[in-house]
Amino acid sequence: MRPTQAVGSTGSRSPCRSCDLTLPLQCGNDVTQPSAMVALGKLRRERVLLAEYEAQVKGERVLQAWFTAETLECPLLTLRYHLKEVEEGAQALLLGASLASTACSRPPSLPPLYSAWVACCSLRQPWLWGSFSCLSRNGKLYDELKYLLPLGKQVGMYCRLYRTVERFRRAELLGAAKPGGEFLIRFARVEPPAKKCAFSVTKDGTPVKVQRTLFSESYYTLAMNERWRVTEETRYQNEAVEMLDRIVYWVRVDSSELSWTRFSRTHKAEDLAVPTMLLHLVDQLQEEDEEMSKKYAELEDWGVQRILKHLQAIEAGRYLLQDAQREGDTQLRDQVIDKFLLLPFHSGWDAEHGGFYSFRDVDNWVPHRVEWSARLWWPHCEVMVAFLMGYSETGDPALLKIFIQVSEYSFRQFRDLVYREWYGYLIEDGRVGLSIKGGLYKGCYYNPQCMAMCEQILGALLQRTEDSK
Amino acid sequence: MRPTQAVGSTGSRSPCRSCDLTLPLQCGNDVTQPSAMVALGKLRRERVLLAEYEAQVKGERVLQAWFTAETLECPLLTLRYHLKEVEEGAQALLLGASLASTACSRPPSLPPLYSAWVACCSLRQPWLWGSFSCLSRNGKLYDELKYLLPLGKQVGMYCRLYRTVERFRRAELLGAAKPGGEFLIRFARVEPPAKKCAFSVTKDGTPVKVQRTLFSESYYTLAMNERWRVTEETRYQNEAVEMLDRIVYWVRVDSSELSWTRFSRTHKAEDLAVPTMLLHLVDQLQEEDEEMSKKYAELEDWGVQRILKHLQAIEAGRYLLQDAQREGDTQLRDQVIDKFLLLPFHSGWDAEHGGFYSFRDVDNWVPHRVEWSARLWWPHCEVMVAFLMGYSETGDPALLKIFIQVSEYSFRQFRDLVYREWYGYLIEDGRVGLSIKGGLYKGCYYNPQCMAMCEQILGALLQRTEDSK
Repeated sequence: MRPTQAVGSTGSRSPCRSCDLTLPLQCGNDVTQPSAMVALGKLRRERVLLAEYEAQVKGERVLQAWFTAETLECPLLTLRYHLKEVEEGAQALLLGASLASTACSRPPSLPPLYSAWVACCSLRQPWLWGSFSCLSRNGKLYDELKYLLPLGKQVGMYCRLYRTVERFRRAELLGAAKPGGEFLIRFARVEPPAKKCAFSVTKDGTPVKVQRTLFSESYYTLAMNERWRVTEETRYQNEAVEMLDRIVYWVRVDSSELSWTRFSRTHKAEDLAVPTMLLHLVDQLQEEDEEMSKKYAELEDWGVQRILKHLQAIEAGRYLLQDAQREGDTQLRDQVIDKFLLLPFHSGWDAEHGGFYSFRDVDNWVPHRVEWSARLWWPHCEVMVAFLMGYSETGDPALLKIFIQVSEYSFRQFRDLVYREWYGYLIEDGRVGLSIKGGLYKGCYYNPQCMAMCEQILGALLQRTEDSK
Repeated sequence: MRPTQAVGSTGSRSPCRSCDLTLPLQCGNDVTQPSAMVALGKLRRERVLLAEYEAQVKGERVLQAWFTAETLECPLLTLRYHLKEVEEGAQALLLGASLASTACSRPPSLPPLYSAWVACCSLRQPWLWGSFSCLSRNGKLYDELKYLLPLGKQVGMYCRLYRTVERFRRAELLGAAKPGGEFLIRFARVEPPAKKCAFSVTKDGTPVKVQRTLFSESYYTLAMNERWRVTEETRYQNEAVEMLDRIVYWVRVDSSELSWTRFSRTHKAEDLAVPTMLLHLVDQLQEEDEEMSKKYAELEDWGVQRILKHLQAIEAGRYLLQDAQREGDTQLRDQVIDKFLLLPFHSGWDAEHGGFYSFRDVDNWVPHRVEWSARLWWPHCEVMVAFLMGYSETGDPALLKIFIQVSEYSFRQFRDLVYREWYGYLIEDGRVGLSIKGGLYKGCYYNPQCMAMCEQILGALLQRTEDSK
């Protein structure tokens, strides 16, 4: 399994930083310095000279190679940690089996291999299922609770990569997603058959904390839909649809199961996260699925209208843009680019230090949150996707320029060049705030999603350029 | 009303920074630079030379003057904002009355004076009661919701200062506490007569958010007990006792009214904040009250035992120390100083930049919270009280040294020399993180409490010195 050799490779001046992973990877990518790409934004003109045209194509290739290298790094590093954890689990299981064998005369030794482990632990020892997400800078476990947001995201992302990116069609990735999915089905719900899920559970699945939100349930839905897409087992899709229908019921009919107090809507502020999440889930379920597209068409429209009532937000903008793209609605597209991409970029980007603030007050007061000036990895990921998507749709060089600006900042500041993967939380001046690689919210999701999407869009841009020759 | 002239005043080398308040204050305090006090910790020995002895007494006087100046600043500045708000409210009320007069033939003009306002709005216009707490750096209102934690704290603190500090026995302070207290009684509870209180309400008292905690209710109790102490109206004390009894019921019998899910105790981690808060309330109600001392003796013991099960925490240490002091329990006192004062000081103090981290992981992992390295004003206030109390109890110079070290940092970093009062939230290197003077949690509470307590302890230390002459 070799990544594509990047066109325009210039040798080893700046070798791919992914290659010291102890995984069967070989990589000859030329990952040149981000600064080489700054000029790109100026290049897309209606009429370009041949030299500029060539530079642009080369630039896009370099960008693509850059994102490709990163796509490889994130999920495979998480997988490595996951497999390590699985192997330790298998050893613990063997020890348990060995101890138990005197009583039940089962063969005491099983090879500590992944497949054997899956076969074995799918029957019993559910405490070995599902991943921990709290990994320190170098991958050490610092919290033995299991957090259902990153778990749902990880299960979904492993399946999606397996399904949509050829070089990730690996048995171990799919295998690692399976016990996580089963853990979710068995332990995510607090009081089954009621649908409300926990936020965190002990390693053997006892609920510890429940949030009054719908995000555990949302990523549960995403994981189940992806499990169905790779396995074609209908029980997964049933889980996804039933959960999404319940989420919609909470949002639009009766929220009492979430302990949302009935007066919470007396105040005129309305959460943007809820319709954004719903639009994300609708996108997920509708993908190449006519039945679901029909089923959730009205919900999709509802989500779009709800989001449009808000002033701005880039993450929501990305989903709206996807929606406009699917519908071929250029008016919505232009509105989204102005209001949900450019406006929040200009108000949220810190011109002095670079990077996005986590919170800005719409009237320019100081936000309530102490961590308002922290730089979080995931909005930067979402912004990269949104602006590259906007550029791809419109050809507007201003959008490409911002994409490159944000990419440069993100690759320079968030990457951990020693222990790999990305930091998630920086302080204002770009220094590391939390050195963790995984936590209550950060798992294997935003990075690989962003990298895979950017790589794909850049690939399509290159293809378009080739075709128009 | 003049503050005491500090003995040993050396003139105007470093004039008191409180004096430019537009309040009827005159101050001749010599507020020397904090660094002059560092040497103090070294001075308390079993046998001291006369010169050292005099230096120490002078040092304590300087320290006392320093805290006195600050005590004056915080509550009076908040009061000034409050009165400004009251006056604006009165003007709005007058306008309303004027408009209404055509219909009901009431006299249209009332003087915009505080007393008239209280008389008038206590009958109607409840949206004018209770203070807003969200004040920007220079006192401008940036959020029109009312937050019940800072409101309860402010009502309680105004009454306490009125009651216990002679120079605060001012009608306007007591007057400002009254409408706040009435607002709490009328609007804090979400569904009266049920006791659960909101976290935030609109300006006219409609609940907006309810937390699954007991802190709104705790500061409600504190405010009511203080209202009773200054007015002797039993309805306030009834409110306090009934609320505390309900809080105890939630904590020890049935928490379902807080929406604490029943499995939340399956995980072995237990919150330190709950027993600390309860011990604080027991202290409050027991103060010079034999009946309450008896009623809550068992709860006090329960709180102490619960806290002692935890590893460390300075805020809890302060309440334990008060408890040890009241009981004359020197064994508990020494245990508390080692485990709840010195241990957290050494693990929580940032030797490089100064100041306390907000969160530290007991196993030295990176804490979950993004804002873990922020410096918050209130723990610094609590630490000053705790260490000065410890020094006063033991005479150990190491404790005095830490008290001075923390005071120096706090006075240097948290004070806003331009718009007065204290910032609440700094980043790691001491720069301002949030410039607000009041917010969801910060109101008129920790600063004046700390200053008044330190001033009082320092005064007692000086008196002791005088007496032993």
